[in-house]
Amino acid sequence: MNIETIRFKNNRLLILDQTLLPHKQEYRTLKDLSQVIEAIKSLRVRGAPAIGIVAAYGLAIHALNLKALKKLDFVALKNAAQQLKQARPTAVNLKWAIDRQMAVIENLQNDQDEMVSALIHEAKTIHDEDRETCDKIGSYGDALIADGFNILTHCNTGFLATGGIGTALGIVYKAAENHKKVHVFVDETRPVGQGARLTFWELNQAGIPATLITDNMAGSLMKEGKVDIVITGADRIAANGDTANKIGTYSLAVLAKAHNIPFYIAAPYSTFDLNIDSGQQIPIEQRPKEEVLQFWNIPSNDSYQVYNPAFDVTPGDLINGIITEFGIIKKPFEKNIINVPKQFNKGDAT
Amino acid sequence: MNIETIRFKNNRLLILDQTLLPHKQEYRTLKDLSQVIEAIKSLRVRGAPAIGIVAAYGLAIHALNLKALKKLDFVALKNAAQQLKQARPTAVNLKWAIDRQMAVIENLQNDQDEMVSALIHEAKTIHDEDRETCDKIGSYGDALIADGFNILTHCNTGFLATGGIGTALGIVYKAAENHKKVHVFVDETRPVGQGARLTFWELNQAGIPATLITDNMAGSLMKEGKVDIVITGADRIAANGDTANKIGTYSLAVLAKAHNIPFYIAAPYSTFDLNIDSGQQIPIEQRPKEEVLQFWNIPSNDSYQVYNPAFDVTPGDLINGIITEFGIIKKPFEKNIINVPKQFNKGDAT
Repeated sequence: MNIETIRFKNNRLLILDQTLLPHKQEYRTLKDLSQVIEAIKSLRVRGAPAIGIVAAYGLAIHALNLKALKKLDFVALKNAAQQLKQARPTAVNLKWAIDRQMAVIENLQNDQDEMVSALIHEAKTIHDEDRETCDKIGSYGDALIADGFNILTHCNTGFLATGGIGTALGIVYKAAENHKKVHVFVDETRPVGQGARLTFWELNQAGIPATLITDNMAGSLMKEGKVDIVITGADRIAANGDTANKIGTYSLAVLAKAHNIPFYIAAPYSTFDLNIDSGQQIPIEQRPKEEVLQFWNIPSNDSYQVYNPAFDVTPGDLINGIITEFGIIKKPFEKNIINVPKQFNKGDAT
Repeated sequence: MNIETIRFKNNRLLILDQTLLPHKQEYRTLKDLSQVIEAIKSLRVRGAPAIGIVAAYGLAIHALNLKALKKLDFVALKNAAQQLKQARPTAVNLKWAIDRQMAVIENLQNDQDEMVSALIHEAKTIHDEDRETCDKIGSYGDALIADGFNILTHCNTGFLATGGIGTALGIVYKAAENHKKVHVFVDETRPVGQGARLTFWELNQAGIPATLITDNMAGSLMKEGKVDIVITGADRIAANGDTANKIGTYSLAVLAKAHNIPFYIAAPYSTFDLNIDSGQQIPIEQRPKEEVLQFWNIPSNDSYQVYNPAFDVTPGDLINGIITEFGIIKKPFEKNIINVPKQFNKGDAT
């Protein structure tokens, strides 16, 4: 399987429009800053790592456009960076990628050619690194998967969500590659259906046995002993291991604990936000009510009130471990998360 | 508000077609046995008490049709009763209502006029009794509701699910009637959307503040302290209190316990199946995968596997109490459920 979610070629940025999946595989060219922001806001591209990569390329595209108008300078890019960062508030990879971009042009003294080439180069580097990161997460996580495992996952964390094979789903691909028989229970993931539309489709493409369930069936499956492990991705992880991820993740973690089923998060280190001590400080994006109502063809007139947070926060104490490109971070998270970079050179996080 | 879900007049049976709600309020005449069975199977009428009432009327309609053909006898009705009972396997009210119907004609010696009038009379009695039962459940349950409460519910348990004001939702209506300010969090209830399409609509019609959520948001709301009590209905309750109800109820009960939120079931005594000791013996209906997939416009070709049980079983130990027309049954359920009829004359179940 080779699904290219984000493509940058000849200075053109293309994304596979995920709002059209699984019905249509259609690429969309993002020609300017506003199109990049629109694509992120409207979930044409989603998944924390993928958002970071597209935002990084998006800043490069904006620089190319400004250069053509001879209006490229650091201040203009700083404004654009600010707009990009605000496109979605929860996934910290967006901020991380934009901060990396701004860092590489900081000392270029407004040389337009140098700025453009530095931004393109750094975006490609972020993209390439994410590919490698996914491979490593997959390999570390694979150690948790026994032959015959039934893995339950939520949302989409595969090719479509990253620059590589994925995070939680990357582990599934690695296990299958290593000749383990695995089967995945896919939460459909209301309201947007990243599980039903994206993960289910990815796994079918890859030939990995999968069963679609509605989100409210996970507990029942756990009670029946049909789930061996739960693995999800993350949008932001605080220094104490509290993890923001797609709405519904917290419920899965509580249910997994009640049934003594291991619950793991898989995410690159760029998803960690060491500036915040706990999940309470993670901003949670509220999405429009249409997202919930349109599926029932209910018009969104004002009398219909809908609560639609895109994410929830799972406390670190419900998480057995966090699978990163540096290894599996175990408890106590307060101590181990902050020490990961130091451990890096020694090869394993814990 | 006055929503008539089931109407029997001039020997004609009409139901409000719930598959069309909230978009259309359309009554459908059920002219013969096969139309009654189809309406039950395809969820045009649903909710354990309502299914029982419609099945009872359905047997009367069948008797009327057979009488017109001069083919009415006990054996023919016994066959029809068998077919009706098999229309849906989990809700025991269906069996209960049909057994009541068969009991009233058992000794009528195949007198066609007497059989027809007995069946019509008994169906009306079942319908009327359910109206009173709902009122009583509402009143007993109301005692649990404090002014300002946020009540979380699942599926639909109101006018549309019963012959009266409902079970769990009947309690909400009674509390509002008694001038308590209440607000309801409505689980959309995938896959069929009884919450999004029916409960949300009912509450809006009744002017009771309600907020629609996707099923996977309930845990997050509980964590934020926004839920004071969870009340759902039931499709079958075993002698030990284990309760089959709409898929997702079990997860809610586990989540409620984890957050120290009271979790109650509201159901008429006809929903209890004293022939079974525990929930393990309750048959769980598996529904077609189209029900899940069509929502995402995914064609249901064979490569797409879907798990779609209509119900799950919540163990009695996760339930704080069961609100019936006889009062609130408390633990130990093994002892108190079986004793409810004896307590009946004394006025309260526990």
